[in-house]
Amino acid sequence: MYIGFSEAEVFLRNCKDAVIITHQSPDGDCIGAGFGLKDILTELGIRSRVVCSDEFTSRYDFITNSGAGEEFKPETIIAVDVADTKLMGKYQEIYGDKVQLCIDHHVSNRNYAEKTLLRPKATASCEIIYDLAKFMGINISSHCAMCLYTGIATDSGCFRYDCTTSHAHEIAAEMKHCYSDINFSKINRRMFEIKSKGRMILESKFVDIMEEYLDNKLVIAAITLDMMNELGINSDEFEGLAPMTIQLEDTEVGILMKEREPNVYKCSFRSADFVNVSDICRIFGGGGHAKAAGCIIEGTLDEAKKQLVEAVRKALL
Amino acid sequence: MYIGFSEAEVFLRNCKDAVIITHQSPDGDCIGAGFGLKDILTELGIRSRVVCSDEFTSRYDFITNSGAGEEFKPETIIAVDVADTKLMGKYQEIYGDKVQLCIDHHVSNRNYAEKTLLRPKATASCEIIYDLAKFMGINISSHCAMCLYTGIATDSGCFRYDCTTSHAHEIAAEMKHCYSDINFSKINRRMFEIKSKGRMILESKFVDIMEEYLDNKLVIAAITLDMMNELGINSDEFEGLAPMTIQLEDTEVGILMKEREPNVYKCSFRSADFVNVSDICRIFGGGGHAKAAGCIIEGTLDEAKKQLVEAVRKALL
Repeated sequence: MYIGFSEAEVFLRNCKDAVIITHQSPDGDCIGAGFGLKDILTELGIRSRVVCSDEFTSRYDFITNSGAGEEFKPETIIAVDVADTKLMGKYQEIYGDKVQLCIDHHVSNRNYAEKTLLRPKATASCEIIYDLAKFMGINISSHCAMCLYTGIATDSGCFRYDCTTSHAHEIAAEMKHCYSDINFSKINRRMFEIKSKGRMILESKFVDIMEEYLDNKLVIAAITLDMMNELGINSDEFEGLAPMTIQLEDTEVGILMKEREPNVYKCSFRSADFVNVSDICRIFGGGGHAKAAGCIIEGTLDEAKKQLVEAVRKALL
Repeated sequence: MYIGFSEAEVFLRNCKDAVIITHQSPDGDCIGAGFGLKDILTELGIRSRVVCSDEFTSRYDFITNSGAGEEFKPETIIAVDVADTKLMGKYQEIYGDKVQLCIDHHVSNRNYAEKTLLRPKATASCEIIYDLAKFMGINISSHCAMCLYTGIATDSGCFRYDCTTSHAHEIAAEMKHCYSDINFSKINRRMFEIKSKGRMILESKFVDIMEEYLDNKLVIAAITLDMMNELGINSDEFEGLAPMTIQLEDTEVGILMKEREPNVYKCSFRSADFVNVSDICRIFGGGGHAKAAGCIIEGTLDEAKKQLVEAVRKALL
């Protein structure tokens, strides 16, 4: 059932011992939303814990340092920024069919929860949580604001992408005005600029592995397990590499293929302007946003590429 | 003489046949400010022309396509985003001592004009011009808004850097709300994402040429004339390369050295957090902002580097 802010408020004010589930391969928005909501529940005197199937990388230490929460037997199951229970990883089996409240901004949300607060036009799940806290009249601590800013900045590509709403800028303006103790540029540097030497080397290889198809309208870059071993790079360092696939002026669709296990590729799609890559990913059982989506594809590298090129060719018609 | 908005309004409403000077090596802020102000003067029925010592690159076509303005004998000389007449290039001799109005946000502004509207806390000169147009009650056309957005986005690193004010976000929120015909993400893609193949290759070389000094607190990357010839890259492609010097987590100061002519290096400084690189650049006769500044240094590459390392060492103490 889809609900609005009033019902979400009633739910949150009356819940108890909540587990907050974030999605696997966690990013700034689900981590920010999880820890931001935890801060809000704490403000309401409600105990909560943030869980994720994968570990939070050190990039997010400034958020997660506050602690994911103590162990307790959960009575409330909340999911944030999780469009599909499949994305809960190992928590799908435990909580997948028990989610009472889901707060999300993905248009592809599967409506799997008892109550879903869905705002598909919101830049980020963190934007919804900020508005909800304001609606509820809850004091937003600096830590909470930092979490929510991080999510908005991450999902908007620091206010670069199409999905950046006027309202996202309004929230950022309000935060910059109200929280002089938050070093926003330091957060942005952490999210968008800092790289490990390994990552710099990986990026420097990018130009060698990218391949142009369909009159340069499509770029595919594949990173195989062999390549990862050879470069000695761990999979953390791949986060946020997909936008590199649409750097060339003529490119409309970019696909980053990462071999997860032999002949299984996680594909991250990006589009520059008009192609809806979420539609393409759905063909392969995936989904996401119009300009950023993903899917898993199996087969040899050549077979997989052939299928991808064909699907993009049709989308470009 | 420093002036406020009221006096700037009186000046603009009463001026005639204006030349608007932008700085050499033009960037999004001076181009946006120049063409944005031109649109405002047109709205007031005043003829104007935007001039620059260097050519505007094709990256800014969407701004400059409206035309820099016809030839006429100027009666009014305005400079935008120009901190020092030295930065006017070939126009210094012609107009350097005749500037009647300067609109600028550089704290290092030399106060060379008859009247200077200086707002050192503004994110960009475009932010000042937007506020001035609002103050004057002038209708801001879509083209003008696009120009001014571009300047704000450019100088703030798309809202990433420290200099991004709450007000910059407010303006972006207002623009996104009012101008549904502007494709902001396309502008951002043009400013921050699109690269030529040559630029991608250049960036891929970066990790090889960067050198770490002072316990990795300083990174210097030098691009010599030989290197440029070898890679067949023209100097356009270097714009915006300086931020790559502070990508590593521990780096506090980054310097990009570009050989302009044999043994003459244009040095672009960036700082990550606390060092004021404008202060360092002033030692070498340069200047700029606390976190982004520049200077020219002469000598062999080794001598130049030695001087730079020494200056940064002192600043880090």
